Amino acid sequence: MNPGTNQTMESSAIAGGPVRVTPHESHASDIFAPLAEVEAFLAANLATQEFDRPAALADAMAYSTLSAGKRLRPLLAWHACEACGGRGTDSLPAGASIELIHAFSLVHDDLPALDNDDLRRGKPTLHKHAGEAMAILAGDQLMVEAFVWLTQTGDLSPSQRLELCRELAAATSRMVSGQVYDTLGGLPANLSPEDQLRLIHRNKTGALISAACRMGALSVRGGIQPAVLEAITTYSQCVGLIFQIVDDLIDVEQTAEHTGKRTGKDIEAGKRTYPGILGVERSRLEVSRLRDEALKAIGALGPHASALRELCLLMCERTK
Amino acid sequence: MNPGTNQTMESSAIAGGPVRVTPHESHASDIFAPLAEVEAFLAANLATQEFDRPAALADAMAYSTLSAGKRLRPLLAWHACEACGGRGTDSLPAGASIELIHAFSLVHDDLPALDNDDLRRGKPTLHKHAGEAMAILAGDQLMVEAFVWLTQTGDLSPSQRLELCRELAAATSRMVSGQVYDTLGGLPANLSPEDQLRLIHRNKTGALISAACRMGALSVRGGIQPAVLEAITTYSQCVGLIFQIVDDLIDVEQTAEHTGKRTGKDIEAGKRTYPGILGVERSRLEVSRLRDEALKAIGALGPHASALRELCLLMCERTK
Repeated sequence: MNPGTNQTMESSAIAGGPVRVTPHESHASDIFAPLAEVEAFLAANLATQEFDRPAALADAMAYSTLSAGKRLRPLLAWHACEACGGRGTDSLPAGASIELIHAFSLVHDDLPALDNDDLRRGKPTLHKHAGEAMAILAGDQLMVEAFVWLTQTGDLSPSQRLELCRELAAATSRMVSGQVYDTLGGLPANLSPEDQLRLIHRNKTGALISAACRMGALSVRGGIQPAVLEAITTYSQCVGLIFQIVDDLIDVEQTAEHTGKRTGKDIEAGKRTYPGILGVERSRLEVSRLRDEALKAIGALGPHASALRELCLLMCERTK
Repeated sequence: MNPGTNQTMESSAIAGGPVRVTPHESHASDIFAPLAEVEAFLAANLATQEFDRPAALADAMAYSTLSAGKRLRPLLAWHACEACGGRGTDSLPAGASIELIHAFSLVHDDLPALDNDDLRRGKPTLHKHAGEAMAILAGDQLMVEAFVWLTQTGDLSPSQRLELCRELAAATSRMVSGQVYDTLGGLPANLSPEDQLRLIHRNKTGALISAACRMGALSVRGGIQPAVLEAITTYSQCVGLIFQIVDDLIDVEQTAEHTGKRTGKDIEAGKRTYPGILGVERSRLEVSRLRDEALKAIGALGPHASALRELCLLMCERTK
């Protein structure tokens, strides 16, 4: 990808390995600059005890959310907001609430009855750390807290905040359905294996990543044009699938030591994966095709969208 | 209670046993009339497959939600809406979404890692019926579906719908905290046993019952006066506690055969209960005190509030 580039960026929060970006897009430090504000927003809001809350529950929520996540979704929300002419800080309620949903989904997916994982982000999973009962309840609390934050925080109009709640609810609903397909089956038998796989992942991971971009765009004060939202939506659906294909490739190609989570588990669990169905090479080609489609979609947004372009490229190249 | 009453109403959906109501309030058939619309709304919305959803997941959601529940919360929402001058049908999105949250909480609370219950509403609990993985995920889906319904349904203004989402999120958050206190402890040690118990139940059951009343009131088109919302709030907090105290009394005094769920389990689990801390007699006195406070609070709402009065009396007398 990007033939002729000669610049290497290493050790970002997203990319685990070297990533080549073209010189005119090399704002690497810029695209991760919002992370400090994202972390501060998450930590401050998690520390706010608006309701009576048991300390152990607050600890479990912080343990799962403030661990070393990539913060891909809040970053996408931030840069989508700016790509549409908004101020990145206006995306923080949206981005942080999506991060809570992401954290909740990891906690529940890791449970013994589901993926039964012991390791997450290099640390014991929450049920290993705090027990299964707490992991179930803290997951529940993280999910609903996302809606508490979206409804109680921010300066956007009621219509916009309602729209954000609607997006988040729909994406979370899709995510859970995708997890059921992935874990328990029930896929429509008339679909090809590749279409079945796409159905799983468009829901399981794609919906929330897509919502991150769309909710960032919907956080622009005063609203945006439908054509702009459409461009962001196309971009968002492409990067959602890119994320999952690359995730599947990482599971095949990397070690737990490198990624901080158990690898090889998809094959072990007999799960449908992109490399398993398409092979590694065709999976990589699909990533390239989706990358081109994503970049084309946001072409008309001009220089405001350069961070979104760069994020897309980093997502194609990440190794953990 | 109600000395001098001589009328008996039996076998309603709420009251399992005889309930005496004063003659001028004996609209028993009326107060349960909305149940048909509540059931139809729940069934129709659960059958709507807006997103790709595995059939087994939809079945699990319906199994947990459409079983023989009391529908206390949607009834409270309906009658609170009408007590404030609104049309009961406008409360359906609020009432039904609260019922989904209630169903989710039962599914997760019944899980082996939590209360480990096999029986619910006279049927196997969801994890017994469909497996633990499905019970975890269907619970998650029910919770988020509540927000899908609230954001996608209804004719209320965006501000009102946002307010409803805020209420529901806050109440659900409190509910989960209450469940953590109840199951895992962590109660503030400086509180008396009675205050600890109140802290648990104000959150665990009280918050959602209170939200049912408030959200019904907040579903009145065009909004309501602050004093009216305050009256409903006081009423709602009283009936929330009444519900729990009576629930504790039922656990001590009734059989599983009568209630359709395991009884005696609070004592078995060493849980704090009202009869355990106050004794049966003082618990009943507390119910009477709260009943009087609830009825006084809505006194100024006049005849519109007669169904709310009657519901309160039924809640004091229920035996399952």
